[in-house]
Amino acid sequence: MAPFSLIILISIVLSFLDDGSASQNPYLRHVHRPCKSMVVYFHDIRYNGNNDQNATSRIVGEPEGANKTSLVGVGLTHFGDLIAFDDPLTEDNNLRSPPAGRAQGFYLYDGRNQPASWHGFSMIFNSTKYKGTLTLAGLNVILAKTRDISVVGGTGDFFMHRGIATFSTDAVEDETYFRLRIQIKLYECWKLMNH
Amino acid sequence: MAPFSLIILISIVLSFLDDGSASQNPYLRHVHRPCKSMVVYFHDIRYNGNNDQNATSRIVGEPEGANKTSLVGVGLTHFGDLIAFDDPLTEDNNLRSPPAGRAQGFYLYDGRNQPASWHGFSMIFNSTKYKGTLTLAGLNVILAKTRDISVVGGTGDFFMHRGIATFSTDAVEDETYFRLRIQIKLYECWKLMNH
Amino acid sequence: MAPFSLIILISIVLSFLDDGSASQNPYLRHVHRPCKSMVVYFHDIRYNGNNDQNATSRIVGEPEGANKTSLVGVGLTHFGDLIAFDDPLTEDNNLRSPPAGRAQGFYLYDGRNQPASWHGFSMIFNSTKYKGTLTLAGLNVILAKTRDISVVGGTGDFFMHRGIATFSTDAVEDETYFRLRIQIKLYECWKLMNH
Repeated sequence: MAPFSLIILISIVLSFLDDGSASQNPYLRHVHRPCKSMVVYFHDIRYNGNNDQNATSRIVGEPEGANKTSLVGVGLTHFGDLIAFDDPLTEDNNLRSPPAGRAQGFYLYDGRNQPASWHGFSMIFNSTKYKGTLTLAGLNVILAKTRDISVVGGTGDFFMHRGIATFSTDAVEDETYFRLRIQIKLYECWKLMNH
Repeated sequence: MAPFSLIILISIVLSFLDDGSASQNPYLRHVHRPCKSMVVYFHDIRYNGNNDQNATSRIVGEPEGANKTSLVGVGLTHFGDLIAFDDPLTEDNNLRSPPAGRAQGFYLYDGRNQPASWHGFSMIFNSTKYKGTLTLAGLNVILAKTRDISVVGGTGDFFMHRGIATFSTDAVEDETYFRLRIQIKLYECWKLMNH
Repeated sequence: MAPFSLIILISIVLSFLDDGSASQNPYLRHVHRPCKSMVVYFHDIRYNGNNDQNATSRIVGEPEGANKTSLVGVGLTHFGDLIAFDDPLTEDNNLRSPPAGRAQGFYLYDGRNQPASWHGFSMIFNSTKYKGTLTLAGLNVILAKTRDISVVGGTGDFFMHRGIATFSTDAVEDETYFRLRIQIKLYECWKLMNH
C-alpha cells in the first residue's frame, strides 16, 4: 500500500475525530445540532391568598416589608421574592392538556432594575416517550424575547445530558398566571450500557 | 503491508475511540462504568424549637401560615418549606461515626401531591482519601425506593467531575431526623496536569 | 510502507487523542490549561434597613428569631440567612468602575461552625468582549484564602462551557459591603456552528 493512501486513511480518522472531539484546540468542541430536542409549556399559577386549590406555586421567601400573598413592589421587579413551584408541563400551550411532565423547584426574582428571575428546578418525565429528569439552572431575563438557561444534568433517559433551554413568555395573566414556552436542545447525550 | 492488515489497525484505532468518545452519532457517548464511586450517609437533624444544640438544619423559608419550627401541613407534603443544612456525612449509617465530610446547602419541599424536595448543595471532603467538593442539584422524589440526582461539578480531587447520586431513605425518625444513603457514581472524571 | 512507519503513524494519532480525550482510562480527561479565563470583581452591598438606594442584595429568608435587616448571630456564622442579589461585576477592584457584567442569584449562609455560603447564580455579560451568561453553583468556605466553585453551564459566547471559579475575599466593610475577586477558568469550551 502506498504511503499516499495511508495518509488519506489517517486523515479520515482525524476528520472523524473533529466532530465533538479534539481539534486544533483540544478543549474546544464544535457541534452542529442537538442530539435531542423537545418543546414543553410551563404553567405557573401563583398563590394569591384566594386560590388555594388551583395554585401550583407559592411565595416562600421575601424581602423586608413584603408578604406571602402578593409580589413585592420593589422597583416593580419584585426583587427578593422567592417562589417554590410544582408546575405542570404540557406539549401544547393549553393548561388543560394532559401533562407531559412536571417542573419542580424554585425561582427567585433577582433583578433590581430590570425584571429577571433565577431558576433552579428539575423537569420530571414519566411517559412512554421519556422517563427521567433534567435539571436546569440559570437566569431568566423576563422581558427579553428569548433567553437561554443551562441544562446542567439529567437522569434516566437523560442520563448525564447537558444542553440549553430557551424560554419565551407565551402568556401572562395579571400576577397569578404565566406560561413559558421552553425549547430544550440537548447537545451532550450519554448512554449507560449494560445497566 | 497488506491493505487488510491496515484495515485491522484502523479498526483498532476506531474501536479505541468508541469508548467515551465519538461514535456513529458524534454527540452520543457510551459508558459502561463509573470512573469513581463511593457511598456516604447523610444525616439531617432539623431544628424544632427545642434542639438548638443538636440541630444541623433549619427552616429558613415557608409559605403563608407556616412557621420556622415545624414543617407546614399543606397536603402533608410540606410544600414550600425551605431548609438550610450543614449535615455530617459518614461512611456507615451511624450518626456517631467520624464524619467523612460535610454536606452544605438547602432543600426545598416542592411537591404538591406527592412528597418531593429539590436539593442544591455541595459535599466537602477533607480526608486522606479525598480532598475537594462535589456539587449536586436535582429532585428527590422522597417515597421512591431510589431516586437519582445530578452531580453537576466538582473541585479538588473531583475537578470538573460529573455523575449521578442515587438517594435512598435509610431512616426517618419523626419529623426531626432522617438519614439518606447516597451512592455516588462519577462518569466524567478530569485531571488537571502540572497544576 | 514498512510496518515500523505505520506504528509511528498510529502512535501519532493516539498521542493526538490523549489531550482531552480517551486515554488508558477512557473516562479520564487530562487538561493542561483553560480554554478561556478571566478575572472579575463582585461587589455586594447588603440591605440593612437604611441603604435602600444603594443596596444590591437583600435578606429574603432567615431562621427562627432573625430578621430581614441584619444577619443572624447563630454561631456568628449567620447560619440560615438567605440573600438575593443583583450585584455589579467589574474588571478591577473599584466599585465605581463601569460594570463588566452583573451577577444575579442568591447565597445562603450554611455553615454552623465555620462561615460558609452556598451560591447559586449567573453572571451576565453584554460587552464587546463577551455576550452571554455563566451559571455557577457551589460552596464558598469564606475564611479560606481561596475556594473553588463550579461553573456548571453557560450560554451565548459561553455556550455549554464548564469550569472553575476561584473566589478570594478582596474586601469586607462591616456587615454591609464585601468584595470578592473571582478568577474564572473554563476548561470545557464549546462552539455551536451554523447557528
